[in-house]
Amino acid sequence: MNFLEERIIKDGLVKEGNVLKVDTFLNHQMDVELLDEIGREFYRRFSDLKITKVLTIEASGIAIAYSVARCFGVPMVFAKKAKSVNIDGEMYTAEVESFTHKNKNQVIVSKKVLSSDDKILIVDDFLANGCALQGLISIAEDAGATVEGIGIAIEKGFQYGGRSIRNLGYRLESLAIVESMDAETHTIVFREQ
Amino acid sequence: MNFLEERIIKDGLVKEGNVLKVDTFLNHQMDVELLDEIGREFYRRFSDLKITKVLTIEASGIAIAYSVARCFGVPMVFAKKAKSVNIDGEMYTAEVESFTHKNKNQVIVSKKVLSSDDKILIVDDFLANGCALQGLISIAEDAGATVEGIGIAIEKGFQYGGRSIRNLGYRLESLAIVESMDAETHTIVFREQ
Repeated sequence: MNFLEERIIKDGLVKEGNVLKVDTFLNHQMDVELLDEIGREFYRRFSDLKITKVLTIEASGIAIAYSVARCFGVPMVFAKKAKSVNIDGEMYTAEVESFTHKNKNQVIVSKKVLSSDDKILIVDDFLANGCALQGLISIAEDAGATVEGIGIAIEKGFQYGGRSIRNLGYRLESLAIVESMDAETHTIVFREQ
Repeated sequence: MNFLEERIIKDGLVKEGNVLKVDTFLNHQMDVELLDEIGREFYRRFSDLKITKVLTIEASGIAIAYSVARCFGVPMVFAKKAKSVNIDGEMYTAEVESFTHKNKNQVIVSKKVLSSDDKILIVDDFLANGCALQGLISIAEDAGATVEGIGIAIEKGFQYGGRSIRNLGYRLESLAIVESMDAETHTIVFREQ
């Protein structure tokens, strides 16, 4: 097991409805040393790529994106989930369904911050059905940018998001892939990688 | 002028309606070196305090909170703006009005991640009328924790948030306080600190 899988076993909680709660260390309270390590690990895995920008979606992806972007020495961009008066001018948009919140969001990125020269690493904390990720890919490609790689902290391997995005040919790496989990017995099985 | 004031003059945009846009470097696209410097500067200003946790609100506050929390070597917590299935159990809540989005949000923090022993540094990117900040203060105090200090990147000095929170006795430090700005002439005047 790697450092993240070990931490999930130690502090993660499995709840009914295939919910894995990591809110004491990854997406509500955040362990900054763990975030630093996640950043370094994604850098290690993608350091052969000439990344110019790290892209994520608010909110929990932001800290991971910052951590990775620090290692590459490039800016990060987080897509916003609703029209804000603080983004004006031309925008790239995509519609995204949230597994967590059971609703649909318009996801937006200002045209000012993505260009056709950008080589993008997309990162996020969770991958389940892949809707958020597909929204980010669609925005990056609308900008004419190249999606060089995708780094996910925790992938739910029993949902279809990871498979469908790999089938599209993207280089997707997840630090922990949950193969199955059981709320009753509090067990989590990770995919061998 | 300090490093943040200089950056605002260089890359910030003043828009009608007292909107200061910093979305190319602080709250949409983020310059990671600037974020690192903001973290170090808040650490310098508050290093006399025994901080146990950094608290902010999603979304733009998250990167700043992470940066500061790294310097203190403590966890960070970001308050969420809506009920999520990923927070369960007991929660602290506050109602917060958004200047940016012109709506009201329920702001929540899980009771698991704040305790009466916590000495809290609250940070955020913007302070205008102070509603978000008052929500965070109220949540911290509901938990019985102590709000030791408040660090804001950009304060709109011509709105009442900063004054009312200082009047309540909180130690509030803003890296840049905009005294006035003019969309027509593109001028920004900072308060001498």
